[in-house]
Amino acid sequence: MVEQELKDAYKRIQPFIHRTPVLTSLMLNEIAQAELFFKCENFQKTGSFKIRGATNAVLKLSTQQKAKGVVTHSSGNFAQALALAAKSAATKAYIVMPHTASKVKIEAVKGYGGEIILCEPTLEAREKTAAEVVKNKGATFLHPSNDLDVIYGQGTAAMELHETTQNLDIVVTPVGGGGLIAGTALASKTVYPNIKIMGGEPEAANDAYRSLISGKIEQNQTNDTIADGLRTTLGDKNFPIILKHVSRIITVSEDEIREALELIWTRLKILAEPSSAVALAAILQQKETFKHQKVGLIISGGNVAPKDVIFKD
Amino acid sequence: MVEQELKDAYKRIQPFIHRTPVLTSLMLNEIAQAELFFKCENFQKTGSFKIRGATNAVLKLSTQQKAKGVVTHSSGNFAQALALAAKSAATKAYIVMPHTASKVKIEAVKGYGGEIILCEPTLEAREKTAAEVVKNKGATFLHPSNDLDVIYGQGTAAMELHETTQNLDIVVTPVGGGGLIAGTALASKTVYPNIKIMGGEPEAANDAYRSLISGKIEQNQTNDTIADGLRTTLGDKNFPIILKHVSRIITVSEDEIREALELIWTRLKILAEPSSAVALAAILQQKETFKHQKVGLIISGGNVAPKDVIFKD
Repeated sequence: MVEQELKDAYKRIQPFIHRTPVLTSLMLNEIAQAELFFKCENFQKTGSFKIRGATNAVLKLSTQQKAKGVVTHSSGNFAQALALAAKSAATKAYIVMPHTASKVKIEAVKGYGGEIILCEPTLEAREKTAAEVVKNKGATFLHPSNDLDVIYGQGTAAMELHETTQNLDIVVTPVGGGGLIAGTALASKTVYPNIKIMGGEPEAANDAYRSLISGKIEQNQTNDTIADGLRTTLGDKNFPIILKHVSRIITVSEDEIREALELIWTRLKILAEPSSAVALAAILQQKETFKHQKVGLIISGGNVAPKDVIFKD
Repeated sequence: MVEQELKDAYKRIQPFIHRTPVLTSLMLNEIAQAELFFKCENFQKTGSFKIRGATNAVLKLSTQQKAKGVVTHSSGNFAQALALAAKSAATKAYIVMPHTASKVKIEAVKGYGGEIILCEPTLEAREKTAAEVVKNKGATFLHPSNDLDVIYGQGTAAMELHETTQNLDIVVTPVGGGGLIAGTALASKTVYPNIKIMGGEPEAANDAYRSLISGKIEQNQTNDTIADGLRTTLGDKNFPIILKHVSRIITVSEDEIREALELIWTRLKILAEPSSAVALAAILQQKETFKHQKVGLIISGGNVAPKDVIFKD
């Protein structure tokens, strides 16, 4: 059932996404003392894996739903992704964004044809504004990470990874809202039931780490991290999947994230966003766990202004 | 004859190099109002195209020459390239570097098995030190850009580009010592006799621009540019090729280089070094020349410390 959902999702979205490359670096393997395979979703359309889940969810809507459009609240990668996904499906996307969102992000959403609705920068205001769009326009609300169709879509990155690189021992993803790691877990366990799925999470936004320990969804106590895509929390759709399939969440410091990010930029020669570096940071912190293992990592996206990243001397 | 040299060079070096990808960006095409194809040598071994020419030149040495090793003076990409090329050919590389060279670059050369010989940071001291190695060790001197075997090797990047992307109207490369543009011109004109070859050069190191006008090799009057790979001047082996085949050199300001570099990083999601951005900077400065054309660009390398690049707000 899950296997079929994943296969259907992949078939559905394939015409609308890139098949991204899997990169390796002998130097990074040496540093990690492991074999690392980087699935580079920074090269994905809209600059992140989010287009996969957004496209799957939009294409699954009924004709009646498509006639009225979709709505989400996001100031991050899902905003652009949903705007483009809606355009591909010839429907309309309403994107609720805080008026504090950067001009670049607002312009990007507009560039893909999304209609921006600005609101106050609080979760309450976002949810209320999105609910009004649902009510007034009849649009369908799509959550960036807590939606099964979105989760299946995100899982297609791991499906491609396993096609390109067989017999991985472990796959590590960054953990924010939980959509990527849940989709990755489902897609990976379908092919390799004994594969281990682990997450990297900023210490400064460690809700998933604590949720896995307590067995219930915990909230973030802080979220001041350079990994700005990982400030969100898990949801009731993805948490049961994570609880069942994810063996470990490793939390990393801001310095560890920056160091891993610099290694990705300078060794792989790619521009990845800080959130992407959390998986490598986890591997480098827990070297014994990954030693001599064949490890897949999802580089989640590349939407970053280089001037916003300060590396240490 | 040139065609055969190029084919032989490619066959010779193929086992020792990566076939690098050609990337495109709809957004960059829109900005340039042209179709741009980026040959990404930042993903090449040692992080630049220089490994192509170095490998070709080293593999062409006689058994007697290989027994005694090779020597060059370089603080840049050719140093690492020659060290690895020598390792691949089981010969020894002596690399003369100024004692002011960064520790990272010295370590990189050592990492590839090169023997470093430090000297004073003047051209005179470099040449003298290299000449001593030739005399004392019997090593063969290899110039980073003014050597026909090196030039043929550099041309293989364009050969791959034309295989991947047919019927380009123009190819643009950065111009430093002249090896890349000379090799690119030979390789391109062999396949497409009517293709145009152009160079991008920093205003601050505009020797090639002035040489093409005067018809003789000019020296740089300044070389204070962020494009640190382009501070060198043309030589008597590559200049006749450039004079014959290159239709235009476009000079660009430091701000134009930085803007183009930021576009490459953020739109292509790759880490390229500043020298690589000069070709795109030239295209964006002279939009009318490139309008609606199918243009190939060589991204020459990716050896840059992100913290050394400051983008404007």
